[in-house]
Amino acid sequence: MDWYRVFAGILLIVSVNGQSPWRWECDEGFCQKQRTTDETRNVSLSLSACRLFCSNYANLWPRPNGKMNIGHYLAKLNVNSIDVLGPAGDTPINERIRKAAARFKDVIDTKEVGGNRTSGGKSLEVKLQIRNPEILRLRLDLDEGYTLKVSETPDGRIQAIITANNYFGARHGLETLSQLIIYDDIRDEFQIVRDALIEDKPVYTYRGILLDTSRNYISVKTIKRVLEGMALSKLNTFHWHITDSHSFPYVSKSRPALSKLGAYSPRKVYTPEMIADIIEYGLVRGIRVLPEFDAPAHVGEGWQDTGFVTCFNQKPWYDYCVEPPCGQFDPTQEGLYDYLEGIYQDMIEQFSPDIFHMGGDEVSLTCWNTSSTIVQWMNETKGWGTDEEDFMRLWDVFQTKALERYEKKSGKEVPIIMWTSTLTKPEYIKRYLPSEKYIIQIWTTGTDHHVQELLDRDYRVIFSNYDALYLDCGVGGWVNDGQNWCSPYIGWQKVYSNSPKVMAGDKVHLALGAEAALWSEQVDDSTVDARLWPRAAAMAERLWAEPQETWRKAEQRMLVHRERLTKRGILAESLEPEWCMQNENNCPRLTKRGILAESLEPEWCMQNENNCPMYD
Amino acid sequence: MDWYRVFAGILLIVSVNGQSPWRWECDEGFCQKQRTTDETRNVSLSLSACRLFCSNYANLWPRPNGKMNIGHYLAKLNVNSIDVLGPAGDTPINERIRKAAARFKDVIDTKEVGGNRTSGGKSLEVKLQIRNPEILRLRLDLDEGYTLKVSETPDGRIQAIITANNYFGARHGLETLSQLIIYDDIRDEFQIVRDALIEDKPVYTYRGILLDTSRNYISVKTIKRVLEGMALSKLNTFHWHITDSHSFPYVSKSRPALSKLGAYSPRKVYTPEMIADIIEYGLVRGIRVLPEFDAPAHVGEGWQDTGFVTCFNQKPWYDYCVEPPCGQFDPTQEGLYDYLEGIYQDMIEQFSPDIFHMGGDEVSLTCWNTSSTIVQWMNETKGWGTDEEDFMRLWDVFQTKALERYEKKSGKEVPIIMWTSTLTKPEYIKRYLPSEKYIIQIWTTGTDHHVQELLDRDYRVIFSNYDALYLDCGVGGWVNDGQNWCSPYIGWQKVYSNSPKVMAGDKVHLALGAEAALWSEQVDDSTVDARLWPRAAAMAERLWAEPQETWRKAEQRMLVHRERLTKRGILAESLEPEWCMQNENNCPRLTKRGILAESLEPEWCMQNENNCPMYD
Repeated sequence: MDWYRVFAGILLIVSVNGQSPWRWECDEGFCQKQRTTDETRNVSLSLSACRLFCSNYANLWPRPNGKMNIGHYLAKLNVNSIDVLGPAGDTPINERIRKAAARFKDVIDTKEVGGNRTSGGKSLEVKLQIRNPEILRLRLDLDEGYTLKVSETPDGRIQAIITANNYFGARHGLETLSQLIIYDDIRDEFQIVRDALIEDKPVYTYRGILLDTSRNYISVKTIKRVLEGMALSKLNTFHWHITDSHSFPYVSKSRPALSKLGAYSPRKVYTPEMIADIIEYGLVRGIRVLPEFDAPAHVGEGWQDTGFVTCFNQKPWYDYCVEPPCGQFDPTQEGLYDYLEGIYQDMIEQFSPDIFHMGGDEVSLTCWNTSSTIVQWMNETKGWGTDEEDFMRLWDVFQTKALERYEKKSGKEVPIIMWTSTLTKPEYIKRYLPSEKYIIQIWTTGTDHHVQELLDRDYRVIFSNYDALYLDCGVGGWVNDGQNWCSPYIGWQKVYSNSPKVMAGDKVHLALGAEAALWSEQVDDSTVDARLWPRAAAMAERLWAEPQETWRKAEQRMLVHRERLTKRGILAESLEPEWCMQNENNCPRLTKRGILAESLEPEWCMQNENNCPMYD
Repeated sequence: MDWYRVFAGILLIVSVNGQSPWRWECDEGFCQKQRTTDETRNVSLSLSACRLFCSNYANLWPRPNGKMNIGHYLAKLNVNSIDVLGPAGDTPINERIRKAAARFKDVIDTKEVGGNRTSGGKSLEVKLQIRNPEILRLRLDLDEGYTLKVSETPDGRIQAIITANNYFGARHGLETLSQLIIYDDIRDEFQIVRDALIEDKPVYTYRGILLDTSRNYISVKTIKRVLEGMALSKLNTFHWHITDSHSFPYVSKSRPALSKLGAYSPRKVYTPEMIADIIEYGLVRGIRVLPEFDAPAHVGEGWQDTGFVTCFNQKPWYDYCVEPPCGQFDPTQEGLYDYLEGIYQDMIEQFSPDIFHMGGDEVSLTCWNTSSTIVQWMNETKGWGTDEEDFMRLWDVFQTKALERYEKKSGKEVPIIMWTSTLTKPEYIKRYLPSEKYIIQIWTTGTDHHVQELLDRDYRVIFSNYDALYLDCGVGGWVNDGQNWCSPYIGWQKVYSNSPKVMAGDKVHLALGAEAALWSEQVDDSTVDARLWPRAAAMAERLWAEPQETWRKAEQRMLVHRERLTKRGILAESLEPEWCMQNENNCPRLTKRGILAESLEPEWCMQNENNCPMYD
């Protein structure tokens, strides 16, 4: 017998190593630190065991969005005896499940590096019941829900049954199950919740992270850590901003000259093999790898020999683009579209995109306006002027021809994502970007009138409003003195609070979801993890569950989830002293309201006149 | 023959692997990217070779502070044939030099992981001529200067002679030499400057980093990375804020109960062995490990059984301290001083401090005032009131008795550092903290009147003014909503500009130096590197050289030094796109003045009304 009833009743304990003098007790929803005494030694709860039953939503992140019951019992788990079983037969899904199972065991294993792996405990059998095992790729209309049922079998094993429409839902169930397994540091053993029933599915279908790998190169190893963090947080879209004007690391089979000239170095590239590896790594983790080929702006390095790019590295940069080096396609060059077709073909073959991102942000009219070829073509060939609306027609020429080539190679119509821009303003969008085809990714602020304008015109949207989801904000400037443009730093609380439901209002059915963006001007392998995590996980819960509660109710679970990330080798930022994790509810926040209500100035302010910005 | 004359004249090239289509040319002080052609193939300069001769100060960081000449030639270096020779004999310094030499070779080796190690080149002999080989510990009055001379011997080897007063100066010379060795990625080989004469010494004697290991635990591995970054940047003091009220990870031989109760977990401690390892690791790198035992505030966890701490975890925390949990020693407890003596004894034995830090910040009078024992003692035993000046007398009782115990165990008087506080205000400081004994570490802003008040009273000071040197600033709050108290984020430029000379004016002789502080409430192993680097290196150059030039002249070298740090496994923040490194002088900054002068709004602002905070 090795059941532990957590709150009351019989507790039969195998052994207590007794190194730590502390144990925890659940008191009004918070785990309270207590001294271990001789009397309590054998019934001591570890912090992780206490939390599982004492915290809201069993400490799960993102919190489930449906029925949930996890009983009151823990069983000692033999981590050497875990089986994950998929459908019978030798179909592609079996290979996928084999990889997911290996990762599942690894996630459990890394909960405690020094933990005991050989001292017995119950075996675990996980059955994946997948209704459509042939679905191996994500789609926007896919049901990612799952049901997880944990119970004990008559012969004393733990059985977990995960039922789902497809692999992606089943995988989420496995993720949830891994969070119901803990390491008990008082007893030096792994434990699992004995009884559980969870019905769960996400509110939004698009839950993404954008990573820019052009401004600075990001290694495959780091990209895989991003995917791992996404899997832990049930995010499903890795939007790969793979090229830009700064460098062209994407090795195109059709156009190899681009990366040869445009990569930062011969090693700083993504070869077809590396890309295939990343895509498969993502799929196992329930993630689509969505490529963006940004155009007609944001091109430059790599294109030197083609003649298709105008105003490349034009000076002073700030007259022709938003950051050096400038560069935009010249839409009047007929050869450009053949050239692009090759790139699209490569991307379609490699990524099999169910949606495709064509970029389209920050087109500079001044850049185009300084090219005599372009102006001449507009004036003389077309008889247009050079006002904004004329340049929008020019842009439309590009977008229409480029899309034609994309669809020619794709052989089918897929939804196309484009960024908010001049082209998406009310006076142009309906004319050039039909709402049946285009999804608009919003990077203005969440309260910008542009949001409502798009929704009013029935556009499906993805929120990447920079005031909450640009995770590169809040460091020093590099093209300007002082702070970078979108400062200040965005705390996880603000990310958590950024609700598509609130931003979209009664048009919420058009909100596909949201995406945290990590532009890499001031980020590379060293800091990708810290900039993304745990803040992107805050967004993940918002998108999975659209909780009614504020971040305050999620704070303790957030601290735990941050530890989950670091245990997996992801260098997530620390949010608070560990003391606040070990002493729940002992780090209440000081708010202006709090101070005023008590008519007290904190001591620190008294001793440090004029130094109280912390209390804003 | 394998000499390369860099700017003109004969260039005899052994081989060119030719993978990259780019080479660099020095043009008016900037390395410019050029296409490689058949004609230029054999004379192509790699970016690192170009920089060595084209950038100011040969790309050294911190820049030398004296005579400097590095000639015009590079020699191919055989990294398998490097000897570092110290004084003859078998004295303690030989062991130290053996370790420094091993590290020197490792620094060179990590310049390029995939580089060629076996293709010949010249051997290098480094001779360390140390006038006082018996000096094995830093002192505030130690001469850390060195002279480095590199030349070719008649038999074709490269010889480097480093002359210094002591080991610490010699070590800095070795550091400089390592920066004169580059990896040439065009030829896949290591190269060394053939002729050099550098006379160099630091302007300030105290060049430190503070690391807090109490709010969150920091592993020994991470601490060693901090020390390695310090060595690369010629910083010399690792100020270890080893305990605080949140946790007590310091394993005291005399008082083992403190860490047993006070550590976050039995593993999150610093044992005597770990501390000895860190101290030796630092010494090899020219760094003193300076312990702080902060008192009488900033105590709590670990002291539960002693009865010496008052108002521990008192609620609401903001009435009794600046962050949870509160806690202060009760100076009236006679047993406290015996207890402290044990801790001091341990620290003196382990650290052999040439200076000692007694903390003394953020004492809360309200905390003391709520203890009836203390108030009774003040009123009845002493006949004092409970005004600020009375509490300063109480604090003096503590400080005097504690120092007495410290000096009893030390057996000598060493300078004592204390933080600015109420006690260091003009009305108290002279009475309680004699300027011959106490050094004051300033954490107010650099322009606070307190700075001048201290200097006017002849106090030696160390600058840790929070507006430039608190590197934990600029993330979300954890005891308050919004940003943390000392936000915004401090850019490296501001750190670089933070001049003790400017702050101290004609009292600059009292400025011992400065120290970047990393408080760990929101930092742990994941982000220590990124928070410290490369910003602490910006301070390092300020303290080593007090340059007249602004950061603008240092920017390109800063980018190179940041790469040095990352090559050594330090996860330093990225400051700019790699494009700006590869295209020097092509990323000019947009300043308000710049825009106004040209009467132009940048394109981006035109397209995004009300979105131009970047141009402040």
